[in-house]
Amino acid sequence: MSSTTGQVIRCRAAVAWEAGKPLVIEKVEVAPPKAMEVRLKILFTSLCHTDLYFWEAKGQTPMFPRILGHEAGGIVESVGEGVTDLKPGDHVLPVFTGECKECAHCKSEESNMCDLLRINTDRGVMIGDGQSRFSINGKPIYHFVGTSTFSEYTVCHVGSVAKINPLAPLDKVCILSCGITTGLGAALNVAQPKKGSTVAIFGLGAVGLGAAEGARIAGASRIIGIDMNPKRFIEAKKFGITEFVNPKDHDKPVQEVLAEMTGGGVDRSIECTGNVNAMISAFECVHDGWGVAVLVGVPNKDDVFKTHPMNLLNERTLKGTFFGNYKPKSDLPSVVEMYMNKEIELEKFITHEVPLSEINKAFDYMLGGDGLRCIIRMDT
Amino acid sequence: MSSTTGQVIRCRAAVAWEAGKPLVIEKVEVAPPKAMEVRLKILFTSLCHTDLYFWEAKGQTPMFPRILGHEAGGIVESVGEGVTDLKPGDHVLPVFTGECKECAHCKSEESNMCDLLRINTDRGVMIGDGQSRFSINGKPIYHFVGTSTFSEYTVCHVGSVAKINPLAPLDKVCILSCGITTGLGAALNVAQPKKGSTVAIFGLGAVGLGAAEGARIAGASRIIGIDMNPKRFIEAKKFGITEFVNPKDHDKPVQEVLAEMTGGGVDRSIECTGNVNAMISAFECVHDGWGVAVLVGVPNKDDVFKTHPMNLLNERTLKGTFFGNYKPKSDLPSVVEMYMNKEIELEKFITHEVPLSEINKAFDYMLGGDGLRCIIRMDT
Repeated sequence: MSSTTGQVIRCRAAVAWEAGKPLVIEKVEVAPPKAMEVRLKILFTSLCHTDLYFWEAKGQTPMFPRILGHEAGGIVESVGEGVTDLKPGDHVLPVFTGECKECAHCKSEESNMCDLLRINTDRGVMIGDGQSRFSINGKPIYHFVGTSTFSEYTVCHVGSVAKINPLAPLDKVCILSCGITTGLGAALNVAQPKKGSTVAIFGLGAVGLGAAEGARIAGASRIIGIDMNPKRFIEAKKFGITEFVNPKDHDKPVQEVLAEMTGGGVDRSIECTGNVNAMISAFECVHDGWGVAVLVGVPNKDDVFKTHPMNLLNERTLKGTFFGNYKPKSDLPSVVEMYMNKEIELEKFITHEVPLSEINKAFDYMLGGDGLRCIIRMDT
Repeated sequence: MSSTTGQVIRCRAAVAWEAGKPLVIEKVEVAPPKAMEVRLKILFTSLCHTDLYFWEAKGQTPMFPRILGHEAGGIVESVGEGVTDLKPGDHVLPVFTGECKECAHCKSEESNMCDLLRINTDRGVMIGDGQSRFSINGKPIYHFVGTSTFSEYTVCHVGSVAKINPLAPLDKVCILSCGITTGLGAALNVAQPKKGSTVAIFGLGAVGLGAAEGARIAGASRIIGIDMNPKRFIEAKKFGITEFVNPKDHDKPVQEVLAEMTGGGVDRSIECTGNVNAMISAFECVHDGWGVAVLVGVPNKDDVFKTHPMNLLNERTLKGTFFGNYKPKSDLPSVVEMYMNKEIELEKFITHEVPLSEINKAFDYMLGGDGLRCIIRMDT
C-alpha cells in the first residue's frame, strides 16, 4: 500500500479557469477514491480536439474551472471500496467512456455505449456522489468526461479505466485512449473492408489516420484520403494513404469524383470530420450493392443528414460508431497488444512533445493545424 | 423437343392497352426465344402492387400496350442459342431482376443487383436485340420487367429464370418470385434478428408479412406490426405478429411509442411501405448501440430521407435491400425448399384465386385492400 493511500494528494494540474484562456499550472488537492473509484498517477497525456472544443466552449454550456484531458496513460495509486479488478501499480489507460459490465449495452455483444458510464460532457463531478475530487483551497474544480488527465493525479470510476500490459510504453500507448483507437475500430470493427478493397477516408487528422491504419491492416489496396487542407496530405503519406482528393480542386461533388475514380464508388468510406456535408458525401460515394459508410465525426446539434432513400434501397449501408465499437475495459488491452506486436505504429502519430509546464503549446500546435498528437509529460 | 420449338406460338394473354383501363384477354403471337433467352409456359401467376403501379402509370412514363405480370411459376417450353443451364420441361420461376453471373455485382457475395439484368421498368423490349417477342397482328406489345407473366407463354432472358424443384407446387411457389421473398430476405439476410429479439415491421401487406415470417423463423420473440389500416391486423395475426400499433391511435410519433413499448427501441425494424416518413420512423425506432433498420419499400422520386446524424453516431445501422438480398438464380431454389420443408407456409398468403379470364378481379381485390395474394390460373 502506498503511503498516500487514503490521504489527500497535493500535486500539479493544468486548470482551465475560463473559456479559451491559457491553462494555469496550479497546486490542486486530489481526494482519495471513494467506492468503485480509483486514483491514478498520470505519467503521460496528450491533447485531443475534444479537449480543445470544451476549452473553447463555443457550442456548449461553459463549465469552469475545470481540469481537461482524456487521452492518457498512468499507474493506479490507490483504489476505493469494492474495486476488485484493479490494484495499486497496475498500468492503465483512463477512457472518456466506460464499461459498467452490468447494463444492457455492456451485456450486448454489439454495443459499447454503457448506460451508466457513457460519455457525458455536461457532468463535472463523480457519478457516485455528485462531488468533485479536485479542489484548490477547498474550492471544487470540475472534472471532465470522467478522466481529467491534465493533472499529476486524478480520480476515475473503475469502469472508465482499462488495465493494460505493464510492458507497454505509456508515452506511446497513452494516445490509444481516444481518437486513434476510434479511427482504428471504425475501420476494423465497423467498416470491415475486405482484402483488396477500396476505402475512402474523409478527414486526415488523428482519427482519420487511425482509420487509415485500420484499412491498411484489413488489407485494403486503395486508401483514398479526402481533406480540404493540402498540408494534411504530406503527413498522410506515412499512413498508407494511396491517393488524395481535395474537394476544393473539383467543380463537382466529391462523391461524383470518387465514383469516377473507382468505377462506381468505393467499397467502404469512413467519415472523420463531423461536417454533415462530408457525412452525406461519405455515404453517397459508396458503391451500390455492397458499399458501407461509417460515420465517426461528431455533428453539430442542428445538423440534418439528408439523402434520397433510393441511395439506401440500392443496398448501401450507413452506420455510426462510437469509440470504434471497442468496449473500453474489455477491448482496449488488445489494441495495446496490436502496438506491442508491431501491427500498428504509434510513433508516426506523435509529432510533438512538451512538459506539463508548457501545456499551452500543445493547444497552439493544434489550433495551428500543426501535427497530429502532442504528448504532455507530467513529470517535468 | 416440343413441337412448338422454333415456331411462333399463338396463345392468350391479358393485355393492358391503356393506363388504368381493364386488361383485355387477347390472342397474341409469342416469337421463339433468341440467343440466351428461354420461352416459358406460365401455369400460375399472381398480382403484385408493382403490376398495379405500372398499370395505373401515375408516376412513370406510360408504356402501352404492355403485358404486365412478374410473380409466376411455369415450365420451360424451349431455349435459345447458348442456353446451357435450362432445358425444356424444367420447372422455373421467372424473376423481375436477373443474374448474369459475369458482372461485378454477380461476382460479389454481397450484392444481387446484376449490372446487366437489374430491374428496368422503362424497358419494354428484350435486352438482346431491343425488340419485343409479343405481337398482335404484327404490332408489337411491350414486355414488363423481363417477365410479362400475364400470358400463357412468355420469353425471358435466361438470367431472369430460376430453376426450382419440379416437385414444388407451382400454384403455391409462384408467389415466391417477388414480394414475399423480398420480405423474407429482408429479415433473414439483412436485418438478421437474433433469437429472442424484438422486430418492428412497418406495413402489413404481403412484403411485410413475408418479413414477419422471416423474423419468426429467426426466432424473434416480439414482432410488432405497424399499419394505418386496422383491417390488416386481423390477417397479420396468422403471421406471428405479436403486437400491433396503428400510428393514427397516438398523438406522438410512432418511433416514440415503440421506444416506450420496448425500453428504448426495437432491435430490428423493417420498412415495407415505401413512405418516406415511415422510413424515418423505422430508422429512429431502433435501439441505440445495436439497432438495425432495413428499408424495403420503394420511395417516390422526390423523397428525401432526413434524420439527425447523432441517431447514426449512437451506433444505429440503416440499410436498404433489393429482393431481400437474394440472388435470383442462385438463391431462389433454396427459398422454394424452405416451403417444401415446411419452414415457411405460403397458403396463408393466398387469399384469392381467379382464372385468367377474370384477371381484372385480381386488380379489384388489390385496389380494395382486400386480401394478400390472388393467384391467376392460366389454364382456364
